[in-house]
Amino acid sequence: MTNPLIICCAITGSLPTKAINPAVPISVAEQVESTQEAFEAGATICHAHVRNADETPSADPDKFAALKEGLEKHCPGMIIQFSTGGRSGAGQARGAMLSLRPDMASLSVGSNNFPTRVYENPPDLVDWLAAEMVTYGIKPEVEAFDLSHILQAVKMHGDGRIKEPPYVQFVMGVKNAMPADKHVFDYYVETVNRLLPGAPWCAAGIGANQAALNEWSIAAGGHART
Amino acid sequence: MTNPLIICCAITGSLPTKAINPAVPISVAEQVESTQEAFEAGATICHAHVRNADETPSADPDKFAALKEGLEKHCPGMIIQFSTGGRSGAGQARGAMLSLRPDMASLSVGSNNFPTRVYENPPDLVDWLAAEMVTYGIKPEVEAFDLSHILQAVKMHGDGRIKEPPYVQFVMGVKNAMPADKHVFDYYVETVNRLLPGAPWCAAGIGANQAALNEWSIAAGGHART
Ligand SMILES: [Zn+2]
Ligand SMILES: [Zn+2]
Ligand SMILES: [Zn+2]
Ligand SMILES: [Zn+2]
Repeated sequence: MTNPLIICCAITGSLPTKAINPAVPISVAEQVESTQEAFEAGATICHAHVRNADETPSADPDKFAALKEGLEKHCPGMIIQFSTGGRSGAGQARGAMLSLRPDMASLSVGSNNFPTRVYENPPDLVDWLAAEMVTYGIKPEVEAFDLSHILQAVKMHGDGRIKEPPYVQFVMGVKNAMPADKHVFDYYVETVNRLLPGAPWCAAGIGANQAALNEWSIAAGGHART
Repeated sequence: MTNPLIICCAITGSLPTKAINPAVPISVAEQVESTQEAFEAGATICHAHVRNADETPSADPDKFAALKEGLEKHCPGMIIQFSTGGRSGAGQARGAMLSLRPDMASLSVGSNNFPTRVYENPPDLVDWLAAEMVTYGIKPEVEAFDLSHILQAVKMHGDGRIKEPPYVQFVMGVKNAMPADKHVFDYYVETVNRLLPGAPWCAAGIGANQAALNEWSIAAGGHART
């Protein structure tokens, strides 16, 4: 049985602007075009953020709807994953687009520090986002910024807050959260294999750590993020 | 060379009330009396919170000063550790008592979830508390509610924000943070031994997990918390 490599392309993100990188796609039309290139190059999951015209992050369901429509037309069969991350909105606004029923959505199950602030995912918001994903049949990608987030995802799966074994993404290299440490990476893999045997997982290295994380991930049987 | 067991007694904490446990010491006089019993029974560190008359948590420096005076008189030589935890106050109020120069103070270096809310330790507050501890010659006890907190403490030691190798306490069994998982405990010990070779460490199990954590800790060469 083959286990094909899943490549997840993160278009846009919530931070880079055209001033930093003129190639970053901002409008929905630019995002669809950029994703189509990645799709034709072999990417299978599109992890998507949306932006306002002034390039600030947005959680506007209308923008997500337009993006989904464009991706379904130009990238048929691609797995669409919406970000519910906290840079794009506050509280339940982060999940207002889940009723659009994307295939997947990111889900943070704990809180941690970011470079200059707290990334706040209070327990009641986590539970609400997870419940919306159950309601709309969306598979969560659990963003593990720290070790306890993996164990919390397993607990939520055990009590039904997450359906099916969680798909975990290790996020490493965010300042003041978990650094890109190979020992810790190996322990993350060991923990997923111990608690979620057979479940696929992936890893994302932030900034300069992206290449290293993809290399570690592919070597250890995980999926890649570009 | 012997390595005597350090027993840290946490008097009062920030949550239990006399309605829950009539024996919990609330007033400074009750705290001193209770600590003296623990000291005479062999405890070497007193981890201290203070309370208001209505039993709510407090960060009032006057109360900490009275407690320190009482402990110095009745428990001579005992190591006094003040809590700078977030249940007692907000922002820099959490560290207003550090100018009293206790021997040690607790220091959270990251954020995480608690049972019903986010335990917020924003990076600038962490740095301010650490700097106050450097100013007043206070040894921090790093409260590791998650794995990245150990690595963050090591990083802060590396760049001088923490003097001397950090003394880390693993905190396990807080709902929505790290559960009391023996595999994770073993990896915590491995991580401290890898990154802080020779440094002492301790562990605290919350509620029903206290006995297990003390057993694991003593067996693995760590210190105990009662
Ligand atoms: Zn994202
Ligand atoms: Zn992914
Ligand atoms: Zn405490
Ligand atoms: Zn301790």
